[in-house]
Amino acid sequence: MTEDEIAIRSTVASWIDATRRRDIDGVLDLMTDDALFLVPGHPPMDKAAFEAASRSQSASGMKIDAVSDIREVKVEGNLGYIWSHLAVTVTMPKSAEPATRAGYTLTIFRKVGGRWLLCRDANLLTQF
Amino acid sequence: MTEDEIAIRSTVASWIDATRRRDIDGVLDLMTDDALFLVPGHPPMDKAAFEAASRSQSASGMKIDAVSDIREVKVEGNLGYIWSHLAVTVTMPKSAEPATRAGYTLTIFRKVGGRWLLCRDANLLTQF
Repeated sequence: MTEDEIAIRSTVASWIDATRRRDIDGVLDLMTDDALFLVPGHPPMDKAAFEAASRSQSASGMKIDAVSDIREVKVEGNLGYIWSHLAVTVTMPKSAEPATRAGYTLTIFRKVGGRWLLCRDANLLTQF
Repeated sequence: MTEDEIAIRSTVASWIDATRRRDIDGVLDLMTDDALFLVPGHPPMDKAAFEAASRSQSASGMKIDAVSDIREVKVEGNLGYIWSHLAVTVTMPKSAEPATRAGYTLTIFRKVGGRWLLCRDANLLTQF
């Protein structure tokens, strides 16, 4: 693995760790200001909308855990992409049963000031 | 727009045109040999599986039309990505009503031998 590939994997690991700790500022720091999130059935979500949704989820007591299995990392210059299998478990404070979603993601990263940040993410996860 | 950006848009236009004409070899020629297609609820589909599905659909008399609205094209070296809004209409020979699916796609392209070919595609379209 190249240094850049290791750095992109490290960004993903930090993202999941910050999500688990409900460190929203930490997650926001790992994406570009123009980041966009594509999911089925909704218009693209920008960084401000991501932040608003995260703060609302955190305030509701929602806990999120995730396991990411990165299947490929490719880099060219300051542009990179990964695809991965992702399993996300969401637990609500008054719910006994956690909800699980799993599936694939295709994610674009950009190297900004020496750091690899998420800039475009397609999330294909489905509930099961 | 740069020459590379124009070439990527041209690959997308050729793809849709070949799909409309049911020119499966023409579509296969626009992707890398290691191309992968990610969709919700299924494992990733490789080029051989894409070809088998396309030939089966064509044999059934299925007609596919699509309108692509490319929202962004970015290139670095031999790697590029687009995201777009895509609306697909599928008509079966014995069905009066065409089925329509629409949504977003995030797609990676690679420049191979001077040609921009699709190599990774995340398809977030939903039925409506």
